[in-house]
Amino acid sequence: MSKPLILVTNDDGVTAPGIQALTEVAKEFGDVVVVAPDKPQSGMGHAITINATLRVQELKSKNDVPVYSTTGTPVDCVKLAVNEILDRKPDLILSGINHGTNASINVIYSGTMSAAIEGCLEGIPSIGFSLTNHSIDADFTSAKHYAKKIVPQILENGLEKGVCLNVNIPDMGINEIAGIRVCRQANANWIEEFDRREDPSGRPYYWLTGHFENYDEKDDTDISALEQNYVSIVPVQYDLTAYSSLKKLSKLDF
Amino acid sequence: MSKPLILVTNDDGVTAPGIQALTEVAKEFGDVVVVAPDKPQSGMGHAITINATLRVQELKSKNDVPVYSTTGTPVDCVKLAVNEILDRKPDLILSGINHGTNASINVIYSGTMSAAIEGCLEGIPSIGFSLTNHSIDADFTSAKHYAKKIVPQILENGLEKGVCLNVNIPDMGINEIAGIRVCRQANANWIEEFDRREDPSGRPYYWLTGHFENYDEKDDTDISALEQNYVSIVPVQYDLTAYSSLKKLSKLDF
Repeated sequence: MSKPLILVTNDDGVTAPGIQALTEVAKEFGDVVVVAPDKPQSGMGHAITINATLRVQELKSKNDVPVYSTTGTPVDCVKLAVNEILDRKPDLILSGINHGTNASINVIYSGTMSAAIEGCLEGIPSIGFSLTNHSIDADFTSAKHYAKKIVPQILENGLEKGVCLNVNIPDMGINEIAGIRVCRQANANWIEEFDRREDPSGRPYYWLTGHFENYDEKDDTDISALEQNYVSIVPVQYDLTAYSSLKKLSKLDF
Repeated sequence: MSKPLILVTNDDGVTAPGIQALTEVAKEFGDVVVVAPDKPQSGMGHAITINATLRVQELKSKNDVPVYSTTGTPVDCVKLAVNEILDRKPDLILSGINHGTNASINVIYSGTMSAAIEGCLEGIPSIGFSLTNHSIDADFTSAKHYAKKIVPQILENGLEKGVCLNVNIPDMGINEIAGIRVCRQANANWIEEFDRREDPSGRPYYWLTGHFENYDEKDDTDISALEQNYVSIVPVQYDLTAYSSLKKLSKLDF
């Protein structure tokens, strides 16, 4: 029997330490191919490239793992891998390990999670992993440890149709992590603070910055899990319908 | 009493005929400010600009409507408008009218809908409008007619917290449209077909193309509504948690 085929991608770019850590995890469970952006693509959300062309480059394989970089977004990478690069449909897609949290509302801005959602759209079990440390030299030891616990469970049991996983790992030692908690997306948001500057000609420009605010005081959220030193797993869906609003909306007099 | 403040944005760019049509609609109900991308940003999803700077330019106002273009994505436009450009929080955000459908899974790729979702995240009632014709010279008469029915209802009644609207208008005359239907996102997807070409040096490049497949045979979807000549309204949420999967996932042996 052939080993499972595992596609590894990310949004921090093909050279990021996080994707190397995830590739090492994946290698323990199957045949691995890496297809990732040739440059950082954080904050790209579910963007796709439709008004420009895409390039694919095969890089030198590392430890028998074929590695491809593309000029596209994380979602482009999944589409290119599944439709052009791989010779069979992958059994699992792993995205990350992201340098920085994708808990709560970050899921919607995250290229890492959008790649997992795209995999899910293609009918492939998909998991996005993120470490709550955005530093380039973050320590992925704990994240790898927990990824090795989660990956075989999903390979064995699969995921429900239309669902992928958003896994966030707290930035601490393995012995400090309290365990794994399955939870929901916290109701939180970024409060923007644009940093307005002037260029050498005196014309204004802006940097998008902000701080994160958690409005959710309940205990069953990903933010709460991370605050209590748990690894958070949120099942994520691409059906955005707000079913609870259907009835009320239908009563409006359009 | 001051008139409602309505922010108008889109993803086809500030010069698109669709946003001019939506601005005309908005003017009937409030004070309008346009903040839109300086170039087409279709397919940008919920992308934000975090590794580059943003510029804002005030264009010549048209019919007393201030118009700003930005170098950012549709989501950047909403953030810039709410936090930097407008002097008070808008009462309503209208995005579109998109040249082309955003029904079903297109909601996830659409810059137009991501702008509406971002407005919703900011706590502002937000509606994305799309016409099922992506031509630059599409006829927006029917779309305007139905937008004028929907906008005052939402100004008067608001929307539930965490919910915005995805409105799609079929490309036909007003008298051919059967009415408005509140419905759910159809389970459908794009099947990619990459168009592989070679540049003058013989190196390959790709165009992302594809065809749309509807797997959803039920009658309560946006695709079904549009096929039956109805305007579709789908309430859309940013909580991506797949609540129905929480229990099953919790039983896995992580």
